[in-house]
Amino acid sequence: MKHIKTIAFDADDTLWHNEPYFDEAQERFCKLFQDFASSQEILGSILNHQVKNLPLYGFGIKAFTLSMIETALQLTQHNISGKGIEQIITIGKDLLQKPVELLPNVEKVLEELQGKYKLVVATKGDLKDQHRKLHESGIGAYFHHIEVLSDKAELDYEKMLGRLECKASDFLMIGNSLKSDVLPIINIGGYAIHIPYRTTWEYEKIDFEIKHENFKAIDNIGEVIALL
Amino acid sequence: MKHIKTIAFDADDTLWHNEPYFDEAQERFCKLFQDFASSQEILGSILNHQVKNLPLYGFGIKAFTLSMIETALQLTQHNISGKGIEQIITIGKDLLQKPVELLPNVEKVLEELQGKYKLVVATKGDLKDQHRKLHESGIGAYFHHIEVLSDKAELDYEKMLGRLECKASDFLMIGNSLKSDVLPIINIGGYAIHIPYRTTWEYEKIDFEIKHENFKAIDNIGEVIALL
Repeated sequence: MKHIKTIAFDADDTLWHNEPYFDEAQERFCKLFQDFASSQEILGSILNHQVKNLPLYGFGIKAFTLSMIETALQLTQHNISGKGIEQIITIGKDLLQKPVELLPNVEKVLEELQGKYKLVVATKGDLKDQHRKLHESGIGAYFHHIEVLSDKAELDYEKMLGRLECKASDFLMIGNSLKSDVLPIINIGGYAIHIPYRTTWEYEKIDFEIKHENFKAIDNIGEVIALL
Repeated sequence: MKHIKTIAFDADDTLWHNEPYFDEAQERFCKLFQDFASSQEILGSILNHQVKNLPLYGFGIKAFTLSMIETALQLTQHNISGKGIEQIITIGKDLLQKPVELLPNVEKVLEELQGKYKLVVATKGDLKDQHRKLHESGIGAYFHHIEVLSDKAELDYEKMLGRLECKASDFLMIGNSLKSDVLPIINIGGYAIHIPYRTTWEYEKIDFEIKHENFKAIDNIGEVIALL
């Protein structure tokens, strides 16, 4: 990977913890509606609403909040109180104010890489929220900028490379999702490093293995340096 | 303005019609809750919730939908039915599927400018929604890319110019909002052209006049060519 010029880092669960906050939010939601269905059924219903709403809403916490509200309407057959709706909105707003806790070794790696590569953040999610998290993380200065993508399909990455004026063969993506951070990148001729996080959002799971010369898997972001 | 290298166009109500769709959505909302308050009071309450939620939600239709729901909870003192909530969500989803109708002369101007300047779209709003509108507008190919900004304050523009690797003095912004498309730009040393739209969102109104050597006001986007 000696010719790499630009390195993009996924944000949530690659630079900082995120999925545990969503898990906690979903637990709160399940508890609110425990008289209507099992947690497993409720989580399945939220995911269905999220996926159904993706073409209109995209990713992020506002979309998640609206999908929770639709799930609640369905679970209760529209017999939900105004207070219940308000509690869902609060779950969403709480998520938008969670502290940003960096993963181990992140800052050390960025310090090592800065000046040698153009570093960017490439993430899905809410625009405002991701900008907030980068700002609060204290590592914003290591990056040229943040790219909030409406999706992470091949075309989204190709457009991003156009904006960065970077060839795919000079580009490395580092992230925790095989589906979003690895597959589309190797398909367009770029390089990818996968660092699994301890829990993965159901939507990001894939059920096959990836083997490719442009792809490496590591356990900890600290191992990135040795690969470059 | 002979030295301008990069021109950014605001999107909503500069390239295509937008505010009338929001006005129509708000009218539908007012009708739903006409037993609780006058239209004027309801519109004021929506705006209050939108502005209060800006630091968490930012701009765009998902934020607008969530703010309408909070307004409805307040208006009804939480005595709202699940059906009522669903109707609000439908108003929001309808907004996300409105046709994109270009303003007069837009395509003619872009045709004239392409190749001579780096053209970008610089807009607030929902990431997914603005990408959709640019795609459906049919004018995407004229632009190097679209920048969806979480706000249009001076710092947001400075960061954007950093990404574009463009000096403020080589940059021209064209838009319908004096507050968002003109003031911050001339404050950071750039150039701005204002083209008023027939209606302006309350939040974007300012109550003073702007006079500056880097600023021009025109009535129609067709007049841009003569200014350059």
